[in-house]
Amino acid sequence: MSKPEPLFNRLALIGAGLIGSSIARAARAQGAARTIVATARSPKTRRRVAELGLADQVVESNAAAVEGADLVIVSIPVGECGTVAKEIGAHLAAGAVVSDVGSVKGAIVRDMAPYLPKKVHFIPAHPVAGTEYSGPDAGFAELFVNRWCILTPPVDADAKMVEKLAAFWRLLGANVELMAPDHHDLVLAITSHLPHLIAYTIVGTADELQAVTRSEVLKFSAGGFRDFTRIAASDPTMWRDVFLANKDAVLEMLGRFNEDVSALTKAIRKGDGDALFEHFERTRAIRKGIVDIGQDSPTPDFGRPHPDLPHEPLPKPYASEKN
Amino acid sequence: MSKPEPLFNRLALIGAGLIGSSIARAARAQGAARTIVATARSPKTRRRVAELGLADQVVESNAAAVEGADLVIVSIPVGECGTVAKEIGAHLAAGAVVSDVGSVKGAIVRDMAPYLPKKVHFIPAHPVAGTEYSGPDAGFAELFVNRWCILTPPVDADAKMVEKLAAFWRLLGANVELMAPDHHDLVLAITSHLPHLIAYTIVGTADELQAVTRSEVLKFSAGGFRDFTRIAASDPTMWRDVFLANKDAVLEMLGRFNEDVSALTKAIRKGDGDALFEHFERTRAIRKGIVDIGQDSPTPDFGRPHPDLPHEPLPKPYASEKN
Repeated sequence: MSKPEPLFNRLALIGAGLIGSSIARAARAQGAARTIVATARSPKTRRRVAELGLADQVVESNAAAVEGADLVIVSIPVGECGTVAKEIGAHLAAGAVVSDVGSVKGAIVRDMAPYLPKKVHFIPAHPVAGTEYSGPDAGFAELFVNRWCILTPPVDADAKMVEKLAAFWRLLGANVELMAPDHHDLVLAITSHLPHLIAYTIVGTADELQAVTRSEVLKFSAGGFRDFTRIAASDPTMWRDVFLANKDAVLEMLGRFNEDVSALTKAIRKGDGDALFEHFERTRAIRKGIVDIGQDSPTPDFGRPHPDLPHEPLPKPYASEKN
Repeated sequence: MSKPEPLFNRLALIGAGLIGSSIARAARAQGAARTIVATARSPKTRRRVAELGLADQVVESNAAAVEGADLVIVSIPVGECGTVAKEIGAHLAAGAVVSDVGSVKGAIVRDMAPYLPKKVHFIPAHPVAGTEYSGPDAGFAELFVNRWCILTPPVDADAKMVEKLAAFWRLLGANVELMAPDHHDLVLAITSHLPHLIAYTIVGTADELQAVTRSEVLKFSAGGFRDFTRIAASDPTMWRDVFLANKDAVLEMLGRFNEDVSALTKAIRKGDGDALFEHFERTRAIRKGIVDIGQDSPTPDFGRPHPDLPHEPLPKPYASEKN
């Protein structure tokens, strides 16, 4: 079976961090675009993209990147998308699909749409995938496989172009879902933004304690804390922008979360074991649902490697212990 | 090099869940005890322990299990430890080491010590290790490797016996630290108990929303939420008992956490990007510390497997999309 024709002739990637560089790798591996051109704000990142051979061309400006491209994907922090739209607006080719990867969609539409000419198809997107690492070296071609990519096309979008962008994401391994921007922002507020905010909070709380040292927090983190630190290690600029851009939905979810914290706190204070048990039993079922639909690994401890048991030499059984 | 002599002659395990069955497997693999005898409350668990061949003997009562044992480890929910101490007190051999694996230490000392005769060495312990699974099938011999086991011996404990128990845990792969019970409970309140409470809370919050369906929560959980669901899938009975037994320290940590949530909420409400960025930048360093000391995997996304990219067939690029 011969290789199919690429879906797009020229893919322009603005930004080459974890997500942008993963798109570059996956698009090339899958032959999704005939030519890939990439740019990034910092000379250092552009140099690294060239060294890694992630794109056919690396250019210095956003305007140069989008010239002649029939697919433009902006993969930068949400707060910069408006500025970039302004820079590229006049340089976009007629009929191009312009998209992004932002974790917030309402603000993206508000910030980018005014600068994009009518002759292009603006179809915002959000691939719900990532790791705790950032930058062009952190990306990998398989990042989107079996993850969801949410498209939030405007109501008057060209259905063929929406489908063409959906096909691109499916080719990169993602499942595609369409949603209104506002609903996207509500769904992500609970499945992603609130968990990040809470993880950032609790890691900060632990770090400020006087009675428990940082060394103790690190050593005994396998008791649960370390699971919060991965998400609290995500890119600070990206996340600052997410919270500023999705303020209303995040504050709404925070309000509900606070009510639930209060209810469990009260159960602890009153010693109401039945209320605690009932709650803990219920949440277990949700974990099972996530594993069942393939959104997490069923292997214990997230498939974290467990080192082999040490065999001999046997530690000296009666040596004195430092106390 | 010949196999060294076992540290203990007869190890009695009361309880054979994730932790108890892992001790059985690791102790056997390392030759830590000449004979292993196990018991569990339910006939079903006892049957399963026998089927799995985890112990040399499986007996029906706690009293029978401890007869002639020179090491007794109680691996059951914290709330039941007092009752078990009462059952075994009169049957313990002179000079036996009696220990446990509970996530709370102050309450364990309070509940167990009164029933234990002076002729035994009571040295409470807490191996800080686990997965999201429970029961005798969930255990594995490597669970404790490179994890910490905290011993909280009484001030008048026999140093040789403390060291002997420490040697046992080191033989199972753990690092050993000594602590006062109250300090243990404070350290674990922040590194384990509060993270579990928050994870249980947020998973519950997500499940109760009207505007976002459960199916949406599951599908888009890779955005962060799924990391909370593992710890919210832990054993409900165990965790009910932990919160009841470590009430004061947990409420103290909850109070500090709530203050920090309020501060970040205010920063979001005011649109204070600098405050958010500063906080997020700081917490990233803590993640690095945990990975550096080997308490978590440095592989992206906790080493979760990323499936291969699908290659052909190419999805139909212009098929209509269900909206």
